[in-house]
Amino acid sequence: MSAVVTEKPQLREGAFGHATALSCRECGHQIDLGPFYACPECFGPLEIAYDFPQVTREEIEAGPRNIWRYKALLPVPSDIELSPNTEPGFTRLLDAGNLARELGLAKLWVKDDSTNPTNSFKDRVVACALSAARELGAKVFACPSTGNLANAVAAAGARAGIKTVVFIPSNLEQPKQVNSAIFTEQLVAVDGNYDDVNKLAQEIAGEEDGWAFVNVNVRPYYAEGSKTLGYEIAEQLGWRLPDQVVIPVASGSQLTKVHKAFQELIKLGLVEGKPYRIFGAQATGCSPVSVAYKAGVDAIRPVKPDTIAKSLAIGNPADGIYVLDICRETGGAVEDVTDDEVRDAIVLLARTEGVFTETAGGTTVAVLKKLVESGQLDPSAETVVINTGHGLKTLDAVSGRVGPAATIAPSYAAFAETGLAEA
Amino acid sequence: MSAVVTEKPQLREGAFGHATALSCRECGHQIDLGPFYACPECFGPLEIAYDFPQVTREEIEAGPRNIWRYKALLPVPSDIELSPNTEPGFTRLLDAGNLARELGLAKLWVKDDSTNPTNSFKDRVVACALSAARELGAKVFACPSTGNLANAVAAAGARAGIKTVVFIPSNLEQPKQVNSAIFTEQLVAVDGNYDDVNKLAQEIAGEEDGWAFVNVNVRPYYAEGSKTLGYEIAEQLGWRLPDQVVIPVASGSQLTKVHKAFQELIKLGLVEGKPYRIFGAQATGCSPVSVAYKAGVDAIRPVKPDTIAKSLAIGNPADGIYVLDICRETGGAVEDVTDDEVRDAIVLLARTEGVFTETAGGTTVAVLKKLVESGQLDPSAETVVINTGHGLKTLDAVSGRVGPAATIAPSYAAFAETGLAEA
Repeated sequence: MSAVVTEKPQLREGAFGHATALSCRECGHQIDLGPFYACPECFGPLEIAYDFPQVTREEIEAGPRNIWRYKALLPVPSDIELSPNTEPGFTRLLDAGNLARELGLAKLWVKDDSTNPTNSFKDRVVACALSAARELGAKVFACPSTGNLANAVAAAGARAGIKTVVFIPSNLEQPKQVNSAIFTEQLVAVDGNYDDVNKLAQEIAGEEDGWAFVNVNVRPYYAEGSKTLGYEIAEQLGWRLPDQVVIPVASGSQLTKVHKAFQELIKLGLVEGKPYRIFGAQATGCSPVSVAYKAGVDAIRPVKPDTIAKSLAIGNPADGIYVLDICRETGGAVEDVTDDEVRDAIVLLARTEGVFTETAGGTTVAVLKKLVESGQLDPSAETVVINTGHGLKTLDAVSGRVGPAATIAPSYAAFAETGLAEA
Repeated sequence: MSAVVTEKPQLREGAFGHATALSCRECGHQIDLGPFYACPECFGPLEIAYDFPQVTREEIEAGPRNIWRYKALLPVPSDIELSPNTEPGFTRLLDAGNLARELGLAKLWVKDDSTNPTNSFKDRVVACALSAARELGAKVFACPSTGNLANAVAAAGARAGIKTVVFIPSNLEQPKQVNSAIFTEQLVAVDGNYDDVNKLAQEIAGEEDGWAFVNVNVRPYYAEGSKTLGYEIAEQLGWRLPDQVVIPVASGSQLTKVHKAFQELIKLGLVEGKPYRIFGAQATGCSPVSVAYKAGVDAIRPVKPDTIAKSLAIGNPADGIYVLDICRETGGAVEDVTDDEVRDAIVLLARTEGVFTETAGGTTVAVLKKLVESGQLDPSAETVVINTGHGLKTLDAVSGRVGPAATIAPSYAAFAETGLAEA
């Protein structure tokens, strides 16, 4: 098991806020907070355990208009907003009346994370990872990524003034390459797929001292950032939980953390407890969790991804089994859709709500549609769908589908001939 | 003079909030609120006049986290936030400590409008234009645009459920075309430059009934949206004005409206009055206002634009003379920079603050740098620089400048050879 630093770091008082320990998700074994991510007893994934203080809605509402309003519930120091970071979060929760009508839903909201600093939800998790890297004394901030994470890490690292090295597959789309390289001189293209890049990152984390790979050796801290999506949904609904949430599944971490956030809010008395159903969305070309859900089994069989939804293309999802548990326990489901359904849904969301989502968001909206049509989702219940990223990053997915209705000479006569005035 | 509707529309009570009239900027002649944009006496541009109520900081702070928190100061109805819109504004004001150190400034902030719903400040003005279009009973929502405005109009129109027709030059970059076409089936490509497209829009506005061209026949309402940039800067600084602001100049409208916003806040007692200096930024390839400023003349000689900063490429800026007035009166200046300086500044802002700006923002940051170096800007005074749009829309400007530091095989040995671990 690699470490950010070889020696146990000297942690300052309150370095991780109200976090008390790292707790194994599998066996429950607890260890001290530090640069660890796997249980020393059973190698299960470690998660942050807390002893939360009394937190009030008013305290949160008086906080900054970004994720640090929830700092008391995150593994970050109480002065976190003073450290340079991209200030992500508190994105729009849009009343999606048009899309609701189109799909036959009584009430639908879009939680739109495409307006985050680097245009995806990854800015949330990276902000928490950056804080951990700082507190653990890391010298290098790094990640393996298929795109969105690379953008977020490179931007946050630049602003924090820490050496930042980002690893991507060498065949990554040009927009996502530029959107990382613009922030860091140390973008490394790796000949291989994401799994190869990820393995290399683990190798480097084991060999080099002081490297904080956000999604590898500081993953427990990183993953907690996704809880803020759940907190925001509840606060923006007026401190209540929705009835149903549809969430994309890549590693599955985000879905588990939204559930964790809802549970924490209930326990803290910040929202009223109530049943809610959580649904997972995958692309058929990479749907190991959906396949297991439909087969009624607990084991997830890894797949080789083949889908345009590249930011969801994790063939062996680390949190897949927890996604299954949560979707089953809450009465939700996991569903998958074809690439054509993904493309259609990107256009559908744009034409109804003015939100341009990337393929991951297209997957989630397409799954929402399919869940309604198959009767798995209750159309009369209040529903939230999460849009995790921006369409400008995956232009190729739709550039063949949309375009000018006409190309004309610059004259009124030419325009009149198009018939668009009457259309 | 074209009209949104031929007959004077029946306006509902409070359709334009506390706006009282349309007032000519040149001769001061006032006319009733309606679908007009040019003075019937002198053909000067019309601007909104108000009779503001007493507004308190607390009322504003209790409002929504978007531009409608300032609705009492805009020509919109008091229930504006209930109408479907993209909910723009209240974007980040980033403490730009790294860039400040790099440039030798005591205190610098970046007002980052690249995180607006369609990733530029245009979402602000379009939201106000949409309200006016609705209140005036328009049937069609439209604009001529070089990109950012097209994106904002198409998205807002989709969400509002109004017929939306967007006109662009047929040679526009593909990302901006897709980012409009995704929202509307009625994107019209025009063989010609922006001036040709603009003329066509004016022709259609004159021929067709019920078309609201946001930047043509509802321009007085539209332009007021830029005031919210000024309001937000003041509120986010803790209800104070900065000493210096650097603002890009295309038509010049945004700069004049930020000044108007500051003046209104002072008059309303929402901030303390103080001297401040306003600076305008242009690209040398389209710098008619900067040329006039430097020549010490009042007349602006139109130019044929030739610059990568296409969203600033207006050769005959409608508000150019007012920009000159304001920059001279406040002790500011207008400056221009080359396309190479624009590219360098895009990378500089990204590497220091983790913000990826488009060419317009690159222009503004490059001008900031030049103003410091030439001694025109006081490095000891608190300065705000406005970033108006997102770098993902103008990727080509920098895609040749940044990229992977290395392309390697997926092994630690290959990585070690790059020397990046030690760098």
